[in-house]
Amino acid sequence: MRDVAIIGVGHTKFGVLKEKNILDLACESSLQAIENSGCSNKKFDAVYVGNMCAESLNHFTGLASALVDRINLIPAAADQIKNGPASGGSAIKAGFQAIKAGTCDLVLVTGVEKMTHVKERGRVTSTVATITHHAGERLHGVSLPAMAGMLTRYYLHEYNATMKYLDDIAIKNHRNGVHNPNAHFQREISEFMKRAEQKGKGSWSDEYEFLHDDKVNPIIADPLRLFHVCPVSDGAASVILCEGALAKKMTDKPIYIRGVGQATDTHLVTERKTLRELEAVRWACNQAYKMAGKSSKDIDVGELHDAFEILEIMQSEAAGFFPLGEGGKAAEAGKTTIDGEIPINPSGGLKARGHPLGATGVAQVVELYWQLREEAGKRQVSNPKVGITVNFGGFGNNIVSIIVERGF
Amino acid sequence: MRDVAIIGVGHTKFGVLKEKNILDLACESSLQAIENSGCSNKKFDAVYVGNMCAESLNHFTGLASALVDRINLIPAAADQIKNGPASGGSAIKAGFQAIKAGTCDLVLVTGVEKMTHVKERGRVTSTVATITHHAGERLHGVSLPAMAGMLTRYYLHEYNATMKYLDDIAIKNHRNGVHNPNAHFQREISEFMKRAEQKGKGSWSDEYEFLHDDKVNPIIADPLRLFHVCPVSDGAASVILCEGALAKKMTDKPIYIRGVGQATDTHLVTERKTLRELEAVRWACNQAYKMAGKSSKDIDVGELHDAFEILEIMQSEAAGFFPLGEGGKAAEAGKTTIDGEIPINPSGGLKARGHPLGATGVAQVVELYWQLREEAGKRQVSNPKVGITVNFGGFGNNIVSIIVERGF
Repeated sequence: MRDVAIIGVGHTKFGVLKEKNILDLACESSLQAIENSGCSNKKFDAVYVGNMCAESLNHFTGLASALVDRINLIPAAADQIKNGPASGGSAIKAGFQAIKAGTCDLVLVTGVEKMTHVKERGRVTSTVATITHHAGERLHGVSLPAMAGMLTRYYLHEYNATMKYLDDIAIKNHRNGVHNPNAHFQREISEFMKRAEQKGKGSWSDEYEFLHDDKVNPIIADPLRLFHVCPVSDGAASVILCEGALAKKMTDKPIYIRGVGQATDTHLVTERKTLRELEAVRWACNQAYKMAGKSSKDIDVGELHDAFEILEIMQSEAAGFFPLGEGGKAAEAGKTTIDGEIPINPSGGLKARGHPLGATGVAQVVELYWQLREEAGKRQVSNPKVGITVNFGGFGNNIVSIIVERGF
Repeated sequence: MRDVAIIGVGHTKFGVLKEKNILDLACESSLQAIENSGCSNKKFDAVYVGNMCAESLNHFTGLASALVDRINLIPAAADQIKNGPASGGSAIKAGFQAIKAGTCDLVLVTGVEKMTHVKERGRVTSTVATITHHAGERLHGVSLPAMAGMLTRYYLHEYNATMKYLDDIAIKNHRNGVHNPNAHFQREISEFMKRAEQKGKGSWSDEYEFLHDDKVNPIIADPLRLFHVCPVSDGAASVILCEGALAKKMTDKPIYIRGVGQATDTHLVTERKTLRELEAVRWACNQAYKMAGKSSKDIDVGELHDAFEILEIMQSEAAGFFPLGEGGKAAEAGKTTIDGEIPINPSGGLKARGHPLGATGVAQVVELYWQLREEAGKRQVSNPKVGITVNFGGFGNNIVSIIVERGF
């Protein structure tokens, strides 16, 4: 079977990007990736665009066709892949399969979302909530933050855990994000605290006290507060995928996609066999491990989907890094920091890098590409050879996991 | 390389289906296909859903995840593939590649759209128009029927053609649709004429006179009249794809997907190198021919994308059945009827079968499956061994073509 390599990446700034529309963002990261790969003069066989909400938020139904036209890749095939907030991961999977199938040799995958221009209060949250079960969840007004709140309560109860674990992850991810020039927030939580103090909003003994102050960190969905959830962001990220022989010609430092897993669970959260763990995450990761011929012990760095900080904890367990109920304690003990046992989200994660839905799954792989090539600057993990992503579509019911490995 | 076979199909009635929502339709054709394939007890690796507009017309962003849950295929991977009105073709391509890649052995592909419930006048047309070029077309109010009207005028002028060619295709496709129990319209145009006469709306010497009467067949987008364009329909269609060895176990009459092509052209129609032909159709078909090791001479039956009757003419040329400018004459001469030289749209085509956007590309392949297995009843083409589809995404800027062959 042919190998599939990543030979170039692109990544816009994530954040509130007022001057750019969704197609501008997709073009920016795509062109960066093409230039980065050295393939500007090569024929691309296909373009896959990961995007969740362009149809309702941007009035765009032909995003992939528009992108291929705008960046002059005609007559490349172009499709949009939609899997909620895991659309980016699914788009990479589509590109991976196209190359494995032998029908494509050179593929561009771009994830993109443009959300912050939407001014109507609650419209973004209610649009994202269309991914939930219509009759059993959405009609009852349960948004994704609400589900994450309930899941957090359950976890705290089941495992005798505390909210400090979530605080620790938020603090860690903001600390990592400081060194990610593309992050939505390049600011530690202590820096937010200092600024609030300077503005006379209060005074706190440390970050934890700050994080439990209703005025500066209000409850969003009990027990989750503002700093326990990711922001709404604009942004795009891209990877260039190619088959192994071409990769060797194009770069001395190829990164290979070794495993791809994807698994679904029941649409209704209440129908899941258990909520003590995120089973579909385990299934997706296990598929990826099996395809890659690896186990969780081989992983040097992980990019997990911390749209809500409880998810980083539970994914770190389902991915096999820690036993059930131990993910929070591990984070508290510093095991997941950049210089910890198993660094998680050196990019800053969704919490600090931001979460332009369809872009996230691609951005995760871009971060691992930089990490494995040791190009991650001040957030560089020490000598990582294998990395894994978890990209979370729906509320735990459609998960994509990708394993990448250094090829040099 | 492994073979990819179709071993079962499903197809709902197309039309105005008031009692069913989009998920009901997707489930109905999916379950039919699974039962038809004999794979009810087998593990499905992936589900691909072709759909264009569920996000805006049905408030559904997680259609594939919802389907896999509802029909009990958990933990199968599930993605939605979006390529405008060619979403169905692209979804089959995704399933084809997943099997070729060796990552999947058994895949369900379902195309679906639910549109007729939308009551606001013009909303469906304006939603579909979001596939056009935003600044260069959509903002000027150019809808897809308007573009088809202009293209028709151009064709008539360039090739000294007449509207009678379009009439002939409409008459043929309605005649074929009579024998398709799933068709939106199972009624010949002469039958529409008789009913109008009975209602006292007028009296006409023949179908052609009827088709040029402004009262019963009004102009939609000059020179196109109501009967030159397809209806807005609800419906779903499904295929079960599997790798060759499994196919041989499951059926004595496998149908193989031998070629898949996909090509883009400029988003702006005015930027196309020529409008004398649909170049992207030619490119996509040629890719499919090349992969299949075949040429247009090998094709026994075609399912083309006659959303507007001019498209059947121009696609029959771009697919290589007739020289440029000769497609209309060929239709007039009866070469494309069920017993003609190269039968086109024995199903009734989009004109009579209907056009639930995301379902169409899958329905085309389902029709070829029935034709190649000689299960098409009164619309059966004589002994066909190879068939081709053309599925039209955008206005000619993202085309998918699939070649299937009898495997027995």
